[in-house]
Amino acid sequence: MWKNNLRPKLTVQFYTQDKCFGPGVALLLSRVQEHHSLRAAAMSVGMAYSKAWTIMKHAEQELGMRLLNSTTGGKRGGGATLTLEGERLLADYTDYVNQLNAHSEALFQEKFSWLTE
Amino acid sequence: MWKNNLRPKLTVQFYTQDKCFGPGVALLLSRVQEHHSLRAAAMSVGMAYSKAWTIMKHAEQELGMRLLNSTTGGKRGGGATLTLEGERLLADYTDYVNQLNAHSEALFQEKFSWLTE
Repeated sequence: MWKNNLRPKLTVQFYTQDKCFGPGVALLLSRVQEHHSLRAAAMSVGMAYSKAWTIMKHAEQELGMRLLNSTTGGKRGGGATLTLEGERLLADYTDYVNQLNAHSEALFQEKFSWLTE
Repeated sequence: MWKNNLRPKLTVQFYTQDKCFGPGVALLLSRVQEHHSLRAAAMSVGMAYSKAWTIMKHAEQELGMRLLNSTTGGKRGGGATLTLEGERLLADYTDYVNQLNAHSEALFQEKFSWLTE
């Protein structure tokens, strides 16, 4: 075992001019998949709806694609679903992060074994 | 070229119970190598000395090793140099981050080419 359970932790962001996609947007998207609403998604992660909306619009603008389809009207007000591109981006980002984590852990064990000697 | 120059950016932290080593500590250590003083290192990155000292002590405590040798006294007051373990940790961390960045960029090009279609 590693001394003090020492381990690496990666944060993976996508940048254009500016940060545009990362764990925060990915979490919101996965919660929209679950709740079919950006408002409910924001609430589920303790974020103001206005902030979630701004983050999502910024991501869409920087990436040059729609991530959410808004459904308006009806008895229960508007909802949201992921576009096909939003679903693909979330799935590929999740897979990408998982692969990078696996690689970082293997390389950590290779390079930092001396920390436990 | 990638649409909007889209690219991944990793942040690599080491955790025990708590965050204990990452780009901030690594930058401080490299500035100590340059300036031979934690106070001058802190100033060079616009950080209060007290904060730099706290970050460094926390890292040393969590990692269970000294990173800095303090040299006290003399006409010009105390200075600091890296311990051998501090030097090795900084070099290995830098190399680790470089390798992870190279891997993340290669994998990004492989997985996200559809974003440019």
